Amino acid sequence: MEFTAQTIADFLKGTIEGNPQETVTNISRIEEGKKGTLAFLANPKYEKYLYSSEASIVLINRNLKLEKKVNTTLIRVDDAYQSFASLLNLYTSTLPQKKGIDTNCHISDSASYGKDCYIGAYTFIGDQVKIGDNVKIYPQVYLGDKVQIGDNTTLYPGVKIYNDCIIGKKCILHASTVVGSDGFGFAPGEGTYQKIPQIGNVIIEDNVEIGSNVSIDRATIGSTVIHKGAKLDNLIQIAHNVEIGENTVVVAQAGIAGSTKIGKNCMIAAQAGIVGHISIADEVKIGAQSGLSHSVKNNGEILLGSPAYNLSETKRSMIIYKKLPDMYNKINELEKTLREIRENIK
Amino acid sequence: MEFTAQTIADFLKGTIEGNPQETVTNISRIEEGKKGTLAFLANPKYEKYLYSSEASIVLINRNLKLEKKVNTTLIRVDDAYQSFASLLNLYTSTLPQKKGIDTNCHISDSASYGKDCYIGAYTFIGDQVKIGDNVKIYPQVYLGDKVQIGDNTTLYPGVKIYNDCIIGKKCILHASTVVGSDGFGFAPGEGTYQKIPQIGNVIIEDNVEIGSNVSIDRATIGSTVIHKGAKLDNLIQIAHNVEIGENTVVVAQAGIAGSTKIGKNCMIAAQAGIVGHISIADEVKIGAQSGLSHSVKNNGEILLGSPAYNLSETKRSMIIYKKLPDMYNKINELEKTLREIRENIK
Amino acid sequence: MEFTAQTIADFLKGTIEGNPQETVTNISRIEEGKKGTLAFLANPKYEKYLYSSEASIVLINRNLKLEKKVNTTLIRVDDAYQSFASLLNLYTSTLPQKKGIDTNCHISDSASYGKDCYIGAYTFIGDQVKIGDNVKIYPQVYLGDKVQIGDNTTLYPGVKIYNDCIIGKKCILHASTVVGSDGFGFAPGEGTYQKIPQIGNVIIEDNVEIGSNVSIDRATIGSTVIHKGAKLDNLIQIAHNVEIGENTVVVAQAGIAGSTKIGKNCMIAAQAGIVGHISIADEVKIGAQSGLSHSVKNNGEILLGSPAYNLSETKRSMIIYKKLPDMYNKINELEKTLREIRENIK
Repeated sequence: MEFTAQTIADFLKGTIEGNPQETVTNISRIEEGKKGTLAFLANPKYEKYLYSSEASIVLINRNLKLEKKVNTTLIRVDDAYQSFASLLNLYTSTLPQKKGIDTNCHISDSASYGKDCYIGAYTFIGDQVKIGDNVKIYPQVYLGDKVQIGDNTTLYPGVKIYNDCIIGKKCILHASTVVGSDGFGFAPGEGTYQKIPQIGNVIIEDNVEIGSNVSIDRATIGSTVIHKGAKLDNLIQIAHNVEIGENTVVVAQAGIAGSTKIGKNCMIAAQAGIVGHISIADEVKIGAQSGLSHSVKNNGEILLGSPAYNLSETKRSMIIYKKLPDMYNKINELEKTLREIRENIK
Repeated sequence: MEFTAQTIADFLKGTIEGNPQETVTNISRIEEGKKGTLAFLANPKYEKYLYSSEASIVLINRNLKLEKKVNTTLIRVDDAYQSFASLLNLYTSTLPQKKGIDTNCHISDSASYGKDCYIGAYTFIGDQVKIGDNVKIYPQVYLGDKVQIGDNTTLYPGVKIYNDCIIGKKCILHASTVVGSDGFGFAPGEGTYQKIPQIGNVIIEDNVEIGSNVSIDRATIGSTVIHKGAKLDNLIQIAHNVEIGENTVVVAQAGIAGSTKIGKNCMIAAQAGIVGHISIADEVKIGAQSGLSHSVKNNGEILLGSPAYNLSETKRSMIIYKKLPDMYNKINELEKTLREIRENIK
Repeated sequence: MEFTAQTIADFLKGTIEGNPQETVTNISRIEEGKKGTLAFLANPKYEKYLYSSEASIVLINRNLKLEKKVNTTLIRVDDAYQSFASLLNLYTSTLPQKKGIDTNCHISDSASYGKDCYIGAYTFIGDQVKIGDNVKIYPQVYLGDKVQIGDNTTLYPGVKIYNDCIIGKKCILHASTVVGSDGFGFAPGEGTYQKIPQIGNVIIEDNVEIGSNVSIDRATIGSTVIHKGAKLDNLIQIAHNVEIGENTVVVAQAGIAGSTKIGKNCMIAAQAGIVGHISIADEVKIGAQSGLSHSVKNNGEILLGSPAYNLSETKRSMIIYKKLPDMYNKINELEKTLREIRENIK
């Protein structure tokens, strides 16, 4: 399909600088922009590419001040990243959708599913499972007994959901992710461990996206809960009875230990670890590779380091950490000087 | 089912404080306890909830001193956590068990399995595989040629076990865990790498539980061994020729590099990393996110940090790390003062 | 099969010290060497075992100076590790290979595959997939529409490859690894997030090996690329639009954030994390658990720590870190002394 700058600007409520009749048939990254493609500029790190890009149309923020002349047609919008997302969503909504029930899948007689569903080959759907409308379940998925899947949710190949877990509407779970495996609970005896059966479940609310190879354990009692709008990246560990607040983002390879509650709109960066049995306020940011071992009570706090402390404190320590050898030498020097002075004074 | 405090106390050899005829039909967490449910208190962090809990019965440790009046019937036992585990195990043992061989699974003619097994749909069982009695194999599991599975073991959906690996009795392996993939062995040549074929296997002894999305590599030669009673959480990396001692616990996202031997009853906390070719004594504890790069010879040692050192040493450095900016300023101050003094003396 | 020292030495172009007629039928590790087996010594850490090993034949480096008498027949070669790899490769090439198409797999009518392929049970192969010659696809693999797989590649059980991804020749992908899941891209709105559709793909070039439970995300636009000869261990995160250079090694549980480009022949050690949107030169080494947040411009640089700096700098700081409590006390001592001196001077 071919689109003009005018059509795109109208859709995005944007302003054109350049040729309204410029056309594009594809999308490109600004650093690799080619004629006939549309690119966008949101991250200032990439601004330099704007001036050399051969993309025919570039979406930019309304308030961006150009430092040089550009050769492409610009469309100015309030938020170039969001507008680009809207365009991509429009594009993907036009792609053909998987539909129909494969003959080679197992659906229990007591399970039910809504209209316009796709259920792929070698998928197993247990007893009393309830699946909503327009749900896409790719091949080799496992849904244990009594699992519920809300409308418009997509489960990619190999997703495994244990019995009694509940997934909301408009969720996306990527390949090989596991929901509802047993929490890691053992009562220590005399050198050995007795398993604590995990009889709770996992509840994933609406509009949650979860990456691939994620592990979300079921609660010992009650529920592990991922609240609506939360976004989880790949290879994340969510232990039993954890609660992730609304619209909180957890980046790849982070891990959250048992019974910890994380507030709304938080950002847990990659490879961070959070201990169990603590609670974290709203809008809190935890830096990459941080190790957080205490509750965070103030909304909006930013923490970094392992162990994690307030960002500004930690950053100061991090900078001076590099100067440690220097400091060490200075202290030795000071001691020497002081010794000399004392001897002189005597 | 309904149970009285008397019945539960008799089963647990506990002592009742309150109404022996109090009844419960379900289980709850103490912080969410409701009438008609049984809760337990083991972690002192949660003691405050005891005094407000509406749970009808609460299991507590025999030696707990109450600080206030409670409204619930108490059952005192030697170890509330263990007793709770026993109750849950009793409860889950009454639940219906999966049984039977699904018509849609592949079992090689040369494979064998014992009585009371469950083998789920789309599971693949290779040549000469030997499966014991009462083994539960969920859908979409893969057992390569010559794999052995001991009695009473459970393999959850999507577990993949490569050829020649051996799993003991009463083991539990959670979904999407991989046992026996090739160890990461490459001989460096002139800029490229030559693969070292991995011709060993993995041996998992009895009573081992392994979480979801775990990777346990086969040995180059010989065996990677997880000794009996060990408990592994989710998303753990066990490299080739590693040995994990009896009843050792490895928490989520930890990784152990090639040929390292870990002793008995150790505790490797979450996201810790241990280098290859070292050995660790018994009852050693490695803190979360630690990076251990040397052998540990003393039983019971506790190590923390990246790089990991003895706990007390590391903790002292960690505390002073926060004071680095302060120290830095003090040193500058000292230098200045000293310069002044010297000039005065001259 | 039985081999003499002479046969092995001839194959490896090595020199015998001992009995050319010594025979072996199996392979062992040097620390566990038994009569009738061949072992090798490459890592100096294991040299002590050479003098007590009961292995009948041991491969050693040509330049190794013996410190004691040995009881085994030695074969000296230029590189004992490489020679051992060659022997193992010779051995494994004689093992029987899986062949044939299982009746219980789904192959789209529009898909094609070459000669001598193995396609296992419950594997799903989508529309227009192209598979080369001598490809081994184990059970329960998923290949989305338009996926391409080059000649001589092996996909172990449960590998999931999303639509439009391209895998080269002679690649090995281990169990449960996911290629082509959506990159983690969301445009923040007013407290919620809008998904950025990920319309790119993943390209894995020839001779790449990837461990188990790895997540490689598809590009937002364009391609995430793993260049030829790269080796990835288990449980690794590769985000969207990342590029991994030729013959670069990434060790277990490392993670690389979006749009970062890593050069050739680099070594990213275990559990390291690398931020997005940076570029790393060739032959760079990043230490285990490091957190790299800036581009690396010099070839061959070695970095360590979180945040990661030049190795020698970081090591000096790491050593002095242990002396922090001591330094802290010294500063206090200095301040006290200085105060005394000042009072004396007054």
